[in-house]
Amino acid sequence: MNEKDLLREGERVDDLQRDGYRIIQHPDSFCFGMDAVLLSSYAEAKRGERALDLGTGTGIIPILMRAKTKCRDFTGLEIDETSARRAMRSVQLNGLEDSIRIIPGDLREVSSLFSPGSFDVVTSNPPYMVAGHGKTGKSGKGPERHELLCTLEDVVGGAARMLREQGRFYLIHRPFRLAEVMVSLSRHRLEPKRMRLVYPMADREPNLVLLEARKGANPRLTVEPPLIVYEQPGVYTRELLRIYREDPEETAGGAAN
Amino acid sequence: MNEKDLLREGERVDDLQRDGYRIIQHPDSFCFGMDAVLLSSYAEAKRGERALDLGTGTGIIPILMRAKTKCRDFTGLEIDETSARRAMRSVQLNGLEDSIRIIPGDLREVSSLFSPGSFDVVTSNPPYMVAGHGKTGKSGKGPERHELLCTLEDVVGGAARMLREQGRFYLIHRPFRLAEVMVSLSRHRLEPKRMRLVYPMADREPNLVLLEARKGANPRLTVEPPLIVYEQPGVYTRELLRIYREDPEETAGGAAN
Repeated sequence: MNEKDLLREGERVDDLQRDGYRIIQHPDSFCFGMDAVLLSSYAEAKRGERALDLGTGTGIIPILMRAKTKCRDFTGLEIDETSARRAMRSVQLNGLEDSIRIIPGDLREVSSLFSPGSFDVVTSNPPYMVAGHGKTGKSGKGPERHELLCTLEDVVGGAARMLREQGRFYLIHRPFRLAEVMVSLSRHRLEPKRMRLVYPMADREPNLVLLEARKGANPRLTVEPPLIVYEQPGVYTRELLRIYREDPEETAGGAAN
Repeated sequence: MNEKDLLREGERVDDLQRDGYRIIQHPDSFCFGMDAVLLSSYAEAKRGERALDLGTGTGIIPILMRAKTKCRDFTGLEIDETSARRAMRSVQLNGLEDSIRIIPGDLREVSSLFSPGSFDVVTSNPPYMVAGHGKTGKSGKGPERHELLCTLEDVVGGAARMLREQGRFYLIHRPFRLAEVMVSLSRHRLEPKRMRLVYPMADREPNLVLLEARKGANPRLTVEPPLIVYEQPGVYTRELLRIYREDPEETAGGAAN
């Protein structure tokens, strides 16, 4: 379908700089950030696997992962109807209807939407802030940042129910909630296997954490080298540039190494 | 007492390069490493507080913390009789009998030795390896590295019982066990508040993790900037040198900032 027919009032189209893919966003709504790019680079999804993104928003994670992995079966679940419809139009805009489906629905009721244990991979870039804490979002930007519609526990519980045994859950979150994340994962038998902290600069505190957990795995966590975003103010590190530019040929299995 | 009278066959005296303090070690036994130096620098203990070190070994942590903090009430608990006696002689060698006492005993029975909730600060540099995993220790070096005499759960449980509400637990461990550590702390109401990963070099995986947990605190973890050990092979970073050399004047309250 052509771009003009897929756009609604106030929306814009952003080029993802990857495989010519584009995404439809509305400036008044939550627009994807570096978090989504980092998570879709950290997550691995292989040929023949089924991947589910919980709270997919614009659909950015399935679309980026479609570009950079061999996986061809993505599902994005999104509670907000308007966002879900916009994500569907982004999928159409890129002609990816065969490999990405967007489902409107509540992740707290994920078991009524999909068969338990039917996914190999689950990803999520959930709201980071506890409801009632921190700055309250502007209208239309609340639930993506604050746990108004789902808690960490809902997200982790949903992932655990949807994953097969040994299936992989990829999560990005704020380091200040790391202890809660670990406890929640453990409660749902999602064993943290790989963790990477993202530091804005080498001598600063980290502001994001990437995690891979495996359902039913034995405990043993690999904490990876720091991921540094800026070499100096305004100048990305080589690794960050590589993450933004990577393509499936460079990254077997889709890992950002 | 004079050095000669305090030494037993095969033992040596090492200079701690701090306040003239020295420590008695036996080369066939576990000798303290960088871990103990990092932990005693990371831990805070204030004037008027009571501090307990679980599994004190040579007594290195109370002795270093006596040198670098204003705290004057340290207890070191050590299950191995020979180590405990040697640690007592190190305390005598430094004339610190008034501020450090070494108690022989099993940390699993800590409640029968001390009143619950009677400490402000607990420290521990416990064995890192699960019993039966990894290289088995040479005779005399086993229980310090492997969980033969106590598990992570025993150490964390003991710390929780001994601390007052809002009391602080300082732990050093291996990052590969971080998820287990977090879960165990949480189970015992010791909320992780501060964490620092120690990287041998800036682009390598971390090999140690320092943690501060507070009994009964609200969840919110500060992940601190990375602590890098080597600038280049064989050359310590400035921060590491500072940790080795710090004295109480530089570090108000004893923190290594």
